[in-house]
Amino acid sequence: MTFDIKLAAAEAKAAKNAIANLTQAARLSLLLAIAKGLRSCVDSIIDANKIDLANAKENGLSEAMIDRLALDEAGVEAIAKAVEEIAHQPEVLGSINSIQPLPSGIQVGKMRIPLGVVAMIYESRPNVTIDAAALCLKAGNAVILRGGKEAQASNQALAAVLHSALEKQGLPAAIATVIPVPDREVMQSMLTLSDSIDLIIPRGGEGLIKYVSENSQIPVIQHFKGVCHLFVDKDADLDKALPILENGKTQRTGVCNALETLLVHAEIVEQAMPKIASLFSQKKVKVHACERSISYFDGASPATEADWEAEYLALEIAVKVVDDFDSAVTHIQRYGSGHTEVIVTENLGNAQRFMREVNSSVIMLNASSRFSDGGQLGLGAEIGISTSKLHAYGPMGAQQLTTEKFVVYGDGHIRT
Amino acid sequence: MTFDIKLAAAEAKAAKNAIANLTQAARLSLLLAIAKGLRSCVDSIIDANKIDLANAKENGLSEAMIDRLALDEAGVEAIAKAVEEIAHQPEVLGSINSIQPLPSGIQVGKMRIPLGVVAMIYESRPNVTIDAAALCLKAGNAVILRGGKEAQASNQALAAVLHSALEKQGLPAAIATVIPVPDREVMQSMLTLSDSIDLIIPRGGEGLIKYVSENSQIPVIQHFKGVCHLFVDKDADLDKALPILENGKTQRTGVCNALETLLVHAEIVEQAMPKIASLFSQKKVKVHACERSISYFDGASPATEADWEAEYLALEIAVKVVDDFDSAVTHIQRYGSGHTEVIVTENLGNAQRFMREVNSSVIMLNASSRFSDGGQLGLGAEIGISTSKLHAYGPMGAQQLTTEKFVVYGDGHIRT
Repeated sequence: MTFDIKLAAAEAKAAKNAIANLTQAARLSLLLAIAKGLRSCVDSIIDANKIDLANAKENGLSEAMIDRLALDEAGVEAIAKAVEEIAHQPEVLGSINSIQPLPSGIQVGKMRIPLGVVAMIYESRPNVTIDAAALCLKAGNAVILRGGKEAQASNQALAAVLHSALEKQGLPAAIATVIPVPDREVMQSMLTLSDSIDLIIPRGGEGLIKYVSENSQIPVIQHFKGVCHLFVDKDADLDKALPILENGKTQRTGVCNALETLLVHAEIVEQAMPKIASLFSQKKVKVHACERSISYFDGASPATEADWEAEYLALEIAVKVVDDFDSAVTHIQRYGSGHTEVIVTENLGNAQRFMREVNSSVIMLNASSRFSDGGQLGLGAEIGISTSKLHAYGPMGAQQLTTEKFVVYGDGHIRT
Repeated sequence: MTFDIKLAAAEAKAAKNAIANLTQAARLSLLLAIAKGLRSCVDSIIDANKIDLANAKENGLSEAMIDRLALDEAGVEAIAKAVEEIAHQPEVLGSINSIQPLPSGIQVGKMRIPLGVVAMIYESRPNVTIDAAALCLKAGNAVILRGGKEAQASNQALAAVLHSALEKQGLPAAIATVIPVPDREVMQSMLTLSDSIDLIIPRGGEGLIKYVSENSQIPVIQHFKGVCHLFVDKDADLDKALPILENGKTQRTGVCNALETLLVHAEIVEQAMPKIASLFSQKKVKVHACERSISYFDGASPATEADWEAEYLALEIAVKVVDDFDSAVTHIQRYGSGHTEVIVTENLGNAQRFMREVNSSVIMLNASSRFSDGGQLGLGAEIGISTSKLHAYGPMGAQQLTTEKFVVYGDGHIRT
């Protein structure tokens, strides 16, 4: 079986106006029909998922991968609920925030519009198929989904739900294309289709993102790793710092907004480090410590250059003592991944400087890095977290899948 | 002489914080020092320009190219004035438009920050060297400028002005790099430096833009051609339509916001077309007309498929009669270049539909396409007009050379 991605992309382009110009009421119906379809097709989705799981075991996939692949009734219900949430979020299209009268007499505003056709390239989790489709449809885009080979049967069952909902609204199936044969050739060919596809969002390992970024002729939004820092300033309130450290490092370790490096101001080391050591010991956090802090930790290993760059995604952390505020900022600028950085301080000047000078996508004062997520930051569901500065930076919701055009109102005005 | 673009880009990256964190007062001084430097070095700039002009003549460049290359005292003064205007525009960096309290108790806003290192690739006009540098510096970015070979001596004289102004402010010259040897190898190598360069903006012919888009591993903002449409609706007021047509087609023909195609609703043809024909005859506009309109024009040639795609940049226009509103929109969506489209109508419903459904970067009601320019739309100076939807769409000023990061204010907040 071969799949004609060029034709599919052209059909998506031809169908994009149909989704862009849908009324709010029709868009709501479409999304609710997807949620309903997920619930009524739960058996066929789970059956398809069983095929993927059996193949995964046969192919010797890791437990972690199989875990991400698996869908049960509760999993399908969670996806359906997420679609309903997206459906009921405020409309993003058509808004004009302000209109300015200009000296010539024309009035100028900017109106939010869809991007057109958005392609997602992702790996095993089948829930991404529906999450991404729902966010793209909410933003008025046609979507092309290229999931992982290991989730092929599940994704096809989910595609059937999408297409049935589109059909019920009298809309073309090409608005949501789920690539049936996710081989490498299809992806390579997709990356050249800049006439039809407006944006590519790769989600997955660093290798995939790097490959897509280097080979795409279409704009790419990158979601690289999260090497998140917590800087405990000399004027930190330790009653805030310790819970923020515990929450950031231990609440969930496998996520990109977990803390990976702790920087402690030299002047507060004697006071803070024993408490930090006690927390890590209690929570069984493995420590990679710099020379100036290693004596505080039982069983810590000496931090190497690799530790400053590490995204452990585990109960592990790198710890470094810094001489002053500037050293902390310099360290973050050198080793940070542009994701999320936190300062804990009661010093207003340092708080202001940190918020201003550290240019990762999310900068926090006295709050846990775990808030760095679309839902927690008020965007509703998210399609990922951009660590590249173009177009969107940080968590991306439906609004970040749109753009703005200029709208100009005249009454016969000409330029003199 | 070879030029190490990799080293230059790394130096620009190392210098970007110095320009990003400059105070407003220091940024103003820097830009005013550039304007002052242009005035005090006017003789050396014009001398250098004479070398380029002599080479251009020797190499048989066209009169139009030589015209774009030439700089006289008035030209240098105009560039200096533009820099002063940019200097005095409102600050774009550091602004936070709103802060939202969220259910968790954290407060979330977005702060405007520089992109980092911006590279411009452009052709003959030497004024772009200073315009682009000034806009990038205003937006807090380091800039790498790769102008055309034919303007090499002029660009080096302008680079000396930039570097002298940077030095006076105690800033590294790497903040504004003007590539001394603009050969193709340097450009090819530049397109791979995604570790150092955050954005590439090519300005020039379609070939250059296509080449850069297809080969860059760095995000690109495209400035393609302007095939701008004017649609005279059935309910148009011809007292508005005719001046808007005249202004759009004849005020300046060689610019991307000039009109190239006129669409006329079938129901208004008998009333409008004789007046339009008389205007074109008086203004000596060559007409490429569809079958249904050709009889109105003396000496018109029959429009072919190529005419619907043409960017004449001359006193020429394509004319087509359309059956209805939808046919006009369909024609624009098929042949438009995403630049600027105008409707002239007194019909509120059609006006609203046009503003909503046509997704070029600038959509106008009863106003001339000639307003489609950064200055006229209130952005101040512009670095170009984006016809790609990612990051910026339409005229780009200093603000479009920035991005936004999330800023989160807590008081010990953790995620539960």
